[in-house]
Amino acid sequence: MRCLGIAVFLVACVAPPPAASQEADHPPHHTFDLGEFTLESGDVLPAARVLYVTHGELDAQGSNAVLLPSYFLGTHHSYDFLIGPDAALDPTEYFIVVAEMFGSGGSSSPSNVEAPLRATDFPAVSIRDNVEAMHRLLTEQLSVRRLRAVIGHSMGAQQAFQWAVSHPDLVDLVVAIAGTAKTHPHGVARLESALTLIEHDASIAAGADTLSTAGKRAWIYHWMAWIYSPEWWRERLYESEATPNVDAFLAGRLRYGPTGRPHDYLVQGRAWQTHDVGATPGFDGDLEAALRSIRARVLYMPSATDMYFPLGDAEYESRFIERVDLRPIPSIWGHAAGGGASAADRAFLSEQIARALDMVEAALGIE
Amino acid sequence: MRCLGIAVFLVACVAPPPAASQEADHPPHHTFDLGEFTLESGDVLPAARVLYVTHGELDAQGSNAVLLPSYFLGTHHSYDFLIGPDAALDPTEYFIVVAEMFGSGGSSSPSNVEAPLRATDFPAVSIRDNVEAMHRLLTEQLSVRRLRAVIGHSMGAQQAFQWAVSHPDLVDLVVAIAGTAKTHPHGVARLESALTLIEHDASIAAGADTLSTAGKRAWIYHWMAWIYSPEWWRERLYESEATPNVDAFLAGRLRYGPTGRPHDYLVQGRAWQTHDVGATPGFDGDLEAALRSIRARVLYMPSATDMYFPLGDAEYESRFIERVDLRPIPSIWGHAAGGGASAADRAFLSEQIARALDMVEAALGIE
Repeated sequence: MRCLGIAVFLVACVAPPPAASQEADHPPHHTFDLGEFTLESGDVLPAARVLYVTHGELDAQGSNAVLLPSYFLGTHHSYDFLIGPDAALDPTEYFIVVAEMFGSGGSSSPSNVEAPLRATDFPAVSIRDNVEAMHRLLTEQLSVRRLRAVIGHSMGAQQAFQWAVSHPDLVDLVVAIAGTAKTHPHGVARLESALTLIEHDASIAAGADTLSTAGKRAWIYHWMAWIYSPEWWRERLYESEATPNVDAFLAGRLRYGPTGRPHDYLVQGRAWQTHDVGATPGFDGDLEAALRSIRARVLYMPSATDMYFPLGDAEYESRFIERVDLRPIPSIWGHAAGGGASAADRAFLSEQIARALDMVEAALGIE
Repeated sequence: MRCLGIAVFLVACVAPPPAASQEADHPPHHTFDLGEFTLESGDVLPAARVLYVTHGELDAQGSNAVLLPSYFLGTHHSYDFLIGPDAALDPTEYFIVVAEMFGSGGSSSPSNVEAPLRATDFPAVSIRDNVEAMHRLLTEQLSVRRLRAVIGHSMGAQQAFQWAVSHPDLVDLVVAIAGTAKTHPHGVARLESALTLIEHDASIAAGADTLSTAGKRAWIYHWMAWIYSPEWWRERLYESEATPNVDAFLAGRLRYGPTGRPHDYLVQGRAWQTHDVGATPGFDGDLEAALRSIRARVLYMPSATDMYFPLGDAEYESRFIERVDLRPIPSIWGHAAGGGASAADRAFLSEQIARALDMVEAALGIE
């Protein structure tokens, strides 16, 4: 129950929880121990571990696996709305692995490792580091030989693109939802305006593990101002009995939003901010060349109104991906659309993913 | 020289200064003393004053006046690129008045009044208060009987719309550039995420008149993340020899951007955040009714990529304005386009304003 509690708490920050009828069952979560894990930077994460859950069974060929990597402040429950007998990912058909990034609070994170790596001493982790950790989980621990799909929202989409570039022969389908293959300069600047609120918070700077009261407010308000579209606000979708106006809505988010593990957020935020598939060894910083190297089919679903990963960035990247199907989510929920914020968003995502899997399976000769 | 120095300093935060050849001459600035000025709230601003400059001469009918009210962090120089013999506003044809809002640092502001109204004791001022102060300046001090146009960018546009609602028989043309008649809920939330950085800054909370070092950074980064469009960043328009990357660009803005008068920014920011022409006495909070009451022609020029005053908000409001000409600025400079950030933006604004004035003058039978 503790685990579910945390999941609902986090999801509440970025989107209303999905309707109960659409929730997946909750299998027990597992931990994969990586031991000493050498990061791309050369730094070492001792006793590294990845928290994950699985739904369904791996087939005899080891080829029906679908990986869903977590996103910023997400957990192994973030994709529950896509999983189930009536959803895009049926556990009787697929071996579904939902794994958490470093910094999630479940996988290795400043909040759950012991000194001397606690808090600010935790090394910087990249998206590629997360992909490599999950690659080891899948191949060494779970005997997966082929990934039918890597499906990710937000930082999960960043990881999905990285999978297609780092392991081009292993992935049949990439589903990138409201996330890009590179954090383009606006995202870098926007994230700097967020992460500075942690890094230079008075309490954090004084050595604490929690934000000052003022820092919590600035942090939550930052995300609230960016996550939804102006249309969402103009149509007053923030209104409820408990939150009849903008002030009450912001106050509510401040009360219930995630502020408790700032060093974890910083580790994840820096991974987000610095990501670029063009920086993969062999591509010499050339984003377009890295995108052209992708062999997987790519279902690319930016949110039409996303201010974190704007539509224009996805359109730009799509020009360099050979087998791309660009399908913007027609939503005013901004970035949150990609997390399944509204019933219409969830239906759109499920339908598009199911359709893309059908196409890939038809091409592979799978019934 | 001191005055010019401040102007360039402030403009540098939101846009590069216009080319020297397009700068207007610099007439001496004047101060209009309002005495005890009763605000809409009932509070009194003692010894209130408005700083302004004029270009050209009032004609015998008192009807060739054009008012340009200042915007957030703007000054009486903010519209220089529109003023001159080769620009939209020729001083041989118009009596041009550029007046600064309360909180500008030139007009009454926390930074320039004496105790007991210094800093946090300064009363809240509305957009309507600014309009009424400038109305008194024009009618009592300058003998203006009719306004050919009120032209404003950003908070200047908010004031221009308020003029048309409060004084429907006095204004022939409203030019609203990258600013709306109401701060819609997204703007309210976005501004809260900015203003909390001042209001709850550690130094300010301790009674200082200046922000903490961390607060300055958070404040500047906030504005930098919002003012330009994602396309502007992706096309690397931040690049220069001195700022080859995003980090260097942000560091430069932190060094030179406006952080020195936080209480002034708060007074202006709250006026921006709370504005709604629907709250004008007589309209009972009905924005659409207030917009329908406008008799002036309205040239409405949102920036196509503005994240402060999004295009959708301007499109929505336009539906209720009878004689509106909606002409989005085709620019990737985001909100800064409305301040004439690029040569193309300045040319577009000048041409459209000149054209609208020609149309209004033809209708009025003026050669």
